[in-house]
Amino acid sequence: MEIYSDEYWMNEALKQAQIAYDEGEIPVGAVIVVRNRIIARAYNQTEKLTDVTAHAEILAITAASHALGAKYLTECKLYVTLEPCIMCAGASFWSQLGELHFASNDPQRGYSRIPQPLLHPKTKVFSGLLEDKSKKLLQAFFKNLRN
Amino acid sequence: MEIYSDEYWMNEALKQAQIAYDEGEIPVGAVIVVRNRIIARAYNQTEKLTDVTAHAEILAITAASHALGAKYLTECKLYVTLEPCIMCAGASFWSQLGELHFASNDPQRGYSRIPQPLLHPKTKVFSGLLEDKSKKLLQAFFKNLRN
Repeated sequence: MEIYSDEYWMNEALKQAQIAYDEGEIPVGAVIVVRNRIIARAYNQTEKLTDVTAHAEILAITAASHALGAKYLTECKLYVTLEPCIMCAGASFWSQLGELHFASNDPQRGYSRIPQPLLHPKTKVFSGLLEDKSKKLLQAFFKNLRN
Repeated sequence: MEIYSDEYWMNEALKQAQIAYDEGEIPVGAVIVVRNRIIARAYNQTEKLTDVTAHAEILAITAASHALGAKYLTECKLYVTLEPCIMCAGASFWSQLGELHFASNDPQRGYSRIPQPLLHPKTKVFSGLLEDKSKKLLQAFFKNLRN
């Protein structure tokens, strides 16, 4: 079996972000991987679903739990193209997520602007992978929005 | 038209918590009210839905947005029987919730253990209404769980 790299998975998350972009949503995408397999793919759908809770991470966590038939995602790796917000960090906490990988940071709305730890103590965090690609997509979206 | 009191609405939230209790879920209930009318009722369904994001508040915010056909809940009052967690505070932030009323506090998992403001600056917060009833239900649940 081919073992895929973190970059491969983050690129899959970027494909989800591109779908969001194409549908006029803030372009954030996520995938959840367990044992070298994607069990959930999601993109931000707050506009389409008229629901502020429909962030890529929330939808992905829900889908992954359904795929596994289990509430806890301790063996799972979440790849998301933007640093999670506080809501999504809270969801990740409850899921006891194994690994969080995010591409670009979000100084305004990212969870890490809160000094207290919001993630589960067992969650390992990695950031910066394919950051430029994620940022370019976000910048293009907000540039279009302003025009 | 009869104008209902905050206590009336919180009692409606407690009825939702009782449903959760009866179904073996951690007993937390919520209602969302706009212009003297309930537009969403929800209770914690993390076990039934196998989904850590299925807190009463998240389900209620989603349902209220669908009822209104609008993402923002600036005119809405959320009544919930337990202090929201960080995830739910984050969801409330994104919804620009008008008023948050919670019955009992949650020193371990409540959002207010974080010193930074997590709610939207426009959200007015009220707490302590029917606190004893909410606490009794939670205590009964956890006592049963231990036995």
